[in-house]
Parts: sequence; C-alpha cells; structure tokens
Amino acid sequence: MGVVLVSPRNPLNIGAAARAMANFGFSRLAVVAPYEPHWREARSAVGAPELLAEAKQTQGLSEAIAGCTLVLGTGTLTHRKPEQRVVRLPDLAPLVAAELERGGSVALVFGPEKHGLTRDDLSYCRLLVEIPTDVRQPSMNLGQAVAVCLYELASRVQPDAQPATDIGPLQHGNLADGAAADAETLELVAGVVEQVMEAAHYSPATMREANRHDLRLMLRRLAPGRKDARRILGLFRRILWRLQR
Amino acid sequence: MGVVLVSPRNPLNIGAAARAMANFGFSRLAVVAPYEPHWREARSAVGAPELLAEAKQTQGLSEAIAGCTLVLGTGTLTHRKPEQRVVRLPDLAPLVAAELERGGSVALVFGPEKHGLTRDDLSYCRLLVEIPTDVRQPSMNLGQAVAVCLYELASRVQPDAQPATDIGPLQHGNLADGAAADAETLELVAGVVEQVMEAAHYSPATMREANRHDLRLMLRRLAPGRKDARRILGLFRRILWRLQR
Repeated sequence: MGVVLVSPRNPLNIGAAARAMANFGFSRLAVVAPYEPHWREARSAVGAPELLAEAKQTQGLSEAIAGCTLVLGTGTLTHRKPEQRVVRLPDLAPLVAAELERGGSVALVFGPEKHGLTRDDLSYCRLLVEIPTDVRQPSMNLGQAVAVCLYELASRVQPDAQPATDIGPLQHGNLADGAAADAETLELVAGVVEQVMEAAHYSPATMREANRHDLRLMLRRLAPGRKDARRILGLFRRILWRLQR
Repeated sequence: MGVVLVSPRNPLNIGAAARAMANFGFSRLAVVAPYEPHWREARSAVGAPELLAEAKQTQGLSEAIAGCTLVLGTGTLTHRKPEQRVVRLPDLAPLVAAELERGGSVALVFGPEKHGLTRDDLSYCRLLVEIPTDVRQPSMNLGQAVAVCLYELASRVQPDAQPATDIGPLQHGNLADGAAADAETLELVAGVVEQVMEAAHYSPATMREANRHDLRLMLRRLAPGRKDARRILGLFRRILWRLQR
C-alpha cells in the first residue's frame, strides 16, 4: 500500500505527509511533478524520514500508480459532483484490506494543497475517499489529511503488505482469478480501445478528450480482473488489427 | 468538548491545530502559556479560523481545564511509564460520549512539540490517550495529532455539546448524581487535603512536591462524583479547622 502526492507545493506539507507515513508504518511514497526546489528542500530537511529519500518521483500520475490494482482518490465533495463511487473514510479499511488479501496493490492519492485532485487525476481512481469534515470548513491541510487517512487504515490493514505475486502488470498467466487489473493494464486497455474508436471513426476529434476521460472512468467502474483485462485487451487488439488492414 | 494546547511553540502548528478543529466541528480552544509573539502571529495569520480569535489564554493548565469533568492527556508511551490509565485512541469515543451524556465537560490536552506533556501536566489528567503509532517513529507532529484525535471523535460525539447544567464548578446542589466532579473542584479538594497533611505534620517539606503530585493523580483515579467531592471537601475542611484550633 502506497501514498501518492500529486504536485505538492509546500515542503513543510511534504515533510508532514512523510512523517505521518512513518508514524503509521507506511513506507512507499510517490510524488508526481513536484516543484523541484521545494521537493529538494523537503528531502534534505533535518529529521526527514528515510522514506522521503526513497520516494519515487514521476512526471505523471499514471506512472506513479503503475502496478496498482486499487487507486483511491481523496478530496472533499463540497465543490464537485463526483464521477466515481464515494467511500467515507471510516468505511474504507475493509475495502483496502480485501484488495490486499486478494494480492492487489493499493495507492492512496492526494492532490495539491490549493485545489486538490483535478477531474483528470480522479479519472484514474476507482473510488473517491471522503474525509467527513464540517461543511463550514471542509478543506483539510495536506499533512493532516494524510495523517487522518493513514491513522484510519493503519490499525486495520498491513501498511507494507506486498502483493502475493509481484511479477509485473502484464504477466497474468499464473495469477489467481479475481485479482483486479492494475492501473498500467487499464491504461493499456484504454489506449487500445481509443485507437479502435478512432480507427472506427467512432470518436470525432473534438470529442476525443471527453471520450478518453469517460472511458478511463468506465474502466475503473468496471474494475475488470486481470484475466478479463487481458481478454478485453486481446479482443480490441484484434479489432484494431482488422480495422487497420 | 474542548481542546487545550500547552505551551505550543510553532505558530504553524497552532494554526494547523485550529484548522483541524474547524474541519471536525470543534470550536472551544484554550492555550496555556504560549510564546507570545508566536501566539500573536498564529492568531493574525491570513485565513486563521475564527475559533483562534475566541480562544481562551491561561497561565497554567489548571485554569484552562477549570470546569472540565474529564481531562484527557495525549502522548506517546515510548519514553514514559504512565501513572494513569491508558486508553488507545480507537477506544476513546465511547468514554467521551458517555461523559458528555452525563452532563460532563471534556478537555483533550496536547503538550508542546518538543517533549509533549510533562509529568506534572499529566497529573491533572484522568486518562492518557495513546495514538497507536509505529514504534520506529512514535512521535507525531502536533497539528497532525490534533487532526487524528478529532477525526476519531468527531463522528462519534457531539463536538460542541454543552454540559446539561452549566452552573459553574461549585454549585452542586441541584445536579444529577453520577456527574463527575470537575477539574477545579478536584484542585480545591487537593488543596484542602494538602493543608490537612501539613497541619497534621503528615508531609515533611521535602516530600511536599511528591505528595502533591501523587494526591492529584489519586483524585483523578478515584474520579469522585460531584456530590462525593463536596462531601470529601466538607470533611477535610472540618478536619483542617479542628487541627488549626
């Protein structure tokens, strides 16, 4: 189970998030497109937890969650109509525990301080986790939101449980049935489906962005197992090959 | 239900604690002996929650918790052998809810960033709340500790429940049986018992500090109801009067 910070701005918040991870026994951190000087500052701060030095740094969210089978976005619902299923934080632990037991890998994604995760970020998430806050002051500080989420999960899941079979996203042959396809596989499926849409002239250029977004969301809703994702991928590759002949 | 910060140092932490209170619907804050310039800075910060402006400021912990019937210390157990009953945070809510239902008033006390609550601070607390953290990094950031505690309590208690009868600590006559004596009353009892100890030459001067500490702790352990506290007070006042004749 890992934590992903998308474009964090304040080095103190990065440090606070990392400290909360250390407090609750989580060690896998990925940071997406951080502001470089602040990221360096946070990593070199006195007393920075070790996990900061070992954090993965990526340009996009999709790389940060590659290999994850359950991607959880966080945020408040005050100014947004969610496009995916919403889970209140107190109800989250059983879902996470079940995914880990099934051999899956879970990512908890936090957005930047100012505005939180964008609609595009959230389209990579199967569920949106809502921290129940007061309607008069719903928006939490980043470090505190991380602390509250990890506190809730720490006692009920194994923070650093490794997937039972960690053989990479595309070698599904010997995996148990029922394990969810990971984020990288879903992106692969989305890419091929999109190519098919184009090849079939299904998707006019002006609709391409919107269709891509909706497709991503739908794949998360469907949450196909690894075998099913492989089947879907095979089918669409075949269709694409046919269309392009 | 209120929050007490003892000698907070960092204005960012004060602000973060206040923000977490606003996030989870708590509004009563007291700050004990803050470092003045930082306290002013925290209160005047842009976007500081209203509750900071309305916070009570006291010189000592005993004034901050005056009127409270259940005083909860927070901290880690790593470097200390607790002198009072320890409750893990996930088990705290029912105790707080019961106290509030009974018409009591609850204070959650946080120590300074560096070392947490002192042994003396803790002697005012009936229970020590332990946030279950990783043994390798047990000590939490102040703002995050406040956030985690209030998150845990917010969904299970009424943050701003007022005591059913808020008539001050010393007018017990018409109060329901079973309500716990508040912190101010317990201090009053402790003071009179101490005078009796001295008058009876029970307590040599060198032992006075230690005896005061143990007495305070014992009164918290006993947690007498309001009527019982009044009875104890009456008895010891009578003894004192006798001894001093």
